This record gives sequence, structure tokens and C-alpha cells, in this order.
Amino acid sequence: MNLNPIQLFDTESSTFTYILTGPGSNQAVIIDPVDHHWERDLRHLERLGLQLVYVLETHAHADHVTSAGKLRELTGAQAAVPSGCGIAPAELQLNDGDVIRFGDGEEIKVLHTPGHTAGSMSYIWRGNAFTGDTLLIDGCGRTDFQSGSSDALYDSVSAKLFSLPQETRMWPGHDYKGQAVSTIGWEKRHNVRLANRSREDFCKLMSELNLPKPKLIDVAVPANQNLGLPHGA
Amino acid sequence: MNLNPIQLFDTESSTFTYILTGPGSNQAVIIDPVDHHWERDLRHLERLGLQLVYVLETHAHADHVTSAGKLRELTGAQAAVPSGCGIAPAELQLNDGDVIRFGDGEEIKVLHTPGHTAGSMSYIWRGNAFTGDTLLIDGCGRTDFQSGSSDALYDSVSAKLFSLPQETRMWPGHDYKGQAVSTIGWEKRHNVRLANRSREDFCKLMSELNLPKPKLIDVAVPANQNLGLPHGA
Ligand SMILES: [Fe+2]
Ligand SMILES: [Fe+2]
Repeated sequence: MNLNPIQLFDTESSTFTYILTGPGSNQAVIIDPVDHHWERDLRHLERLGLQLVYVLETHAHADHVTSAGKLRELTGAQAAVPSGCGIAPAELQLNDGDVIRFGDGEEIKVLHTPGHTAGSMSYIWRGNAFTGDTLLIDGCGRTDFQSGSSDALYDSVSAKLFSLPQETRMWPGHDYKGQAVSTIGWEKRHNVRLANRSREDFCKLMSELNLPKPKLIDVAVPANQNLGLPHGA
Repeated sequence: MNLNPIQLFDTESSTFTYILTGPGSNQAVIIDPVDHHWERDLRHLERLGLQLVYVLETHAHADHVTSAGKLRELTGAQAAVPSGCGIAPAELQLNDGDVIRFGDGEEIKVLHTPGHTAGSMSYIWRGNAFTGDTLLIDGCGRTDFQSGSSDALYDSVSAKLFSLPQETRMWPGHDYKGQAVSTIGWEKRHNVRLANRSREDFCKLMSELNLPKPKLIDVAVPANQNLGLPHGA
């Protein structure tokens, strides 16, 4: 049965953080927590009586710093990250096809969806796809840094994400318009960047975006590759 | 089994809107939709393939205008509102103990929880309590207008809401600190206004808040009593 995650939002970077928990156990997983919200996120776990067992990252973010290291330290959870993102201190280096198990039979499937960054992963749980910045609601992540590739993103979305069951709920890594959730089927039919578009057309569109360099990138990427902990700590 | 709702947020008034849907049917219910988000909310229903059958209001709001009338008009859903709020054009005037049925056996129980306003209702669905402005996360709604009463709010919370199963997830009508959800048990033990406080102490505290009059109240309350539709429409 589809279970919705708990969705939390960071207004500064428009980043979503997700808490996943299933019936029959108080174990929980958090995806993409944000540095200055570590107390808020711990309070949610406490209020709901949840025990954090894994902190997952979809990729090494360029626009905000993770609280993965801090949450790991304070809860005893393990950090689980894409193997291709250079996040060395994490316990679990995830590869395509891996399954993360928690709670009473809950399973998260790991899907390698490169393009926004070379290492980016999506996570599939109970009819939900957590797509990080690979696929956004009516959009997608940029592909012009961190070994990003429009070609790779096109393949990840058209061959992998759009092949999921069409009713799969799609929970993005960011949203800038107050949206919360979509479905794979809707994005396949309507996503302004990716629906019914040829590879050439998509790559041309992405190459012409001319986006400014993210303000935090030079600080955030190395910080996130250390789970948000001070280097040398 | 506890199913989380889909939670949407209005940054202007810090209001939460909720979409509820269960397995085996595409019928859905929306609680407390906000006027200028009607398109966003319809897009969520469309993306998830949902058919709106009821628009619920927890009370006649003083700080924002509902889109209930608009959504009703555009979807054919029925408006269901607390009988004591003077919202005349709604199809269903709800009373304490009523049950709203939708989808494949989904049931929403109606609990009269006066105090923030005389008519305020809470809605209970699958281990979730939607408490409107009666009970907020680590707080509660004000009681100084719309026949509000600190005495009544104290009774609603201590006798009714705090008697629900302690693990019930509590989804408030507003939050001003980026929080999403709590539990009845946590609020009973820790809510700064209501946990372990005598009636006298609570009423004194509420009488000393000296809050400014809500900017929108003279417009919003009459508008909401007409489901957000222009009068005479
Ligand atoms: Fe990113
Ligand atoms: Fe209110």
C-alpha cells in the first residue's frame, strides 16, 4: 500500500527533507536533511516516537549543506549515500539495485539516476519515488556542474524513472512553487522539459539555460562530501 | 493503518491544506484550502488522478479566505462545514459525532472542539487528527474573537483531543516554525500552553496574550461564511 512520507521544507534553499516509516516498527529513515534544521528534524522523530536508522542522501548538494553527519552522531543512525558522490565518511556506499531494509519489512530500492550529478540516486519505497534533483515537478535539475550530463539525465528519466508504474508518487528534492508531490505518469505526459521531447531537443534546451553558479557550491560540495561535518572532525 | 495526508502550505498565512485519500479508490477529501492556491490544489488532484468529493473546513477562518466554493464549483465536490460557523451555503452542516464517508470505506469522524471559535471542529481519519486552530504544535489558537473561549478550548483539548490514542498523528491548521506534524501524546506531555496546566493558569495565560486584531478578519470571516465566493454570487 502506498504510504506517504512526512515532508519537511527548507525555505532558504527550497529543499525537501523526507521522513519514511512503516507500520509495525518505530524505525525511520530520513532523506536529504538540511544543516540548520537538525533540531526540527530530531523533534519530529521524538514527537512521533521514531528511531532513526538511516540517513540517506540523493547526491552531494551544491545549494545547501546536509545535517547527515550531525544526525548520525546524535542518533546512531548510519549514513547511506550514492557510491559515486565522493562522500567518503558514510557507512554505506550505495550502488544501483541495492536494497535498504528497515522497520518491519520496509524496503527502499536504490536506482542510479545520473545527470544532475554523476552519482545521483533515486530511492523507491512503497509506490513512492524520491527523485532528488534528477526529476522535479514539471522540471528537472541542472546538468552543468559536478559531472552533470544532459545526455545522462535524459536516459535516467526516460529509461528508468518513466518506466516505473505510472501511479508512483514522485517526491522531488526541491520545489520553488509551493508544490508537494506529483506522479510518474503525469510527469511522463506533461513535464515541460522532458515529456515528448527528443534527446537533441532536451540537450539543446539544457545547454541554453545559462544559470548562475550556485552561491554555495564551493563550500557546500566539500562540506557535503564530509556529511556536513567540519573537515578534520 | 496510519496513512499520512498530503500536506500543502500557504506561506502568506502559514496555513496548512490537507489532501486525504485511501487505497482502492481515487476519491479524495481536502481540508482548509486557501483561496489563491486553488490552481495548485487542483493540479495536485489532477497529477495524482484524484476525484474531489468533499471540501472540509475546520472553522470560519479570520486570517485567510477559503477556496472551498471555487473548488466545489470546479469539481462537483460537496462542501462540509461545522454547523456552528454560519457557513450557510455548504451542503453538509456537520455536528459532533458525524462520520464523513468516502473512497473504499474511508471514514472521517467529526469532533466538536470549540474554543478558538465556537464552531471549530477537528477531524479524525486513520490515526490522524486534523485539529484546525484548536491545537497547534506546541501551541494553540487564540480565543479572543468569533465567540472564542479559553474555557471551552481547555475542555476541547484536555477532555477530547488528549483522550485520543497517544500515537495519533496531529496535523495542525497552522505552523509558524517550519514544523509539519506532532502526536497527541507528545502534545499532552509537552505542549507549552496546555500540558500539565490548570484551567485557571491556562485561561490567565490566554487572557494576557494581547494579540493584535488579525488584519483580514473583517473581510475573511464573512467571505469564509460564503465559502470564499463573492456575496450575491
Ligand atoms: Fe542538487
Ligand atoms: Fe483560525
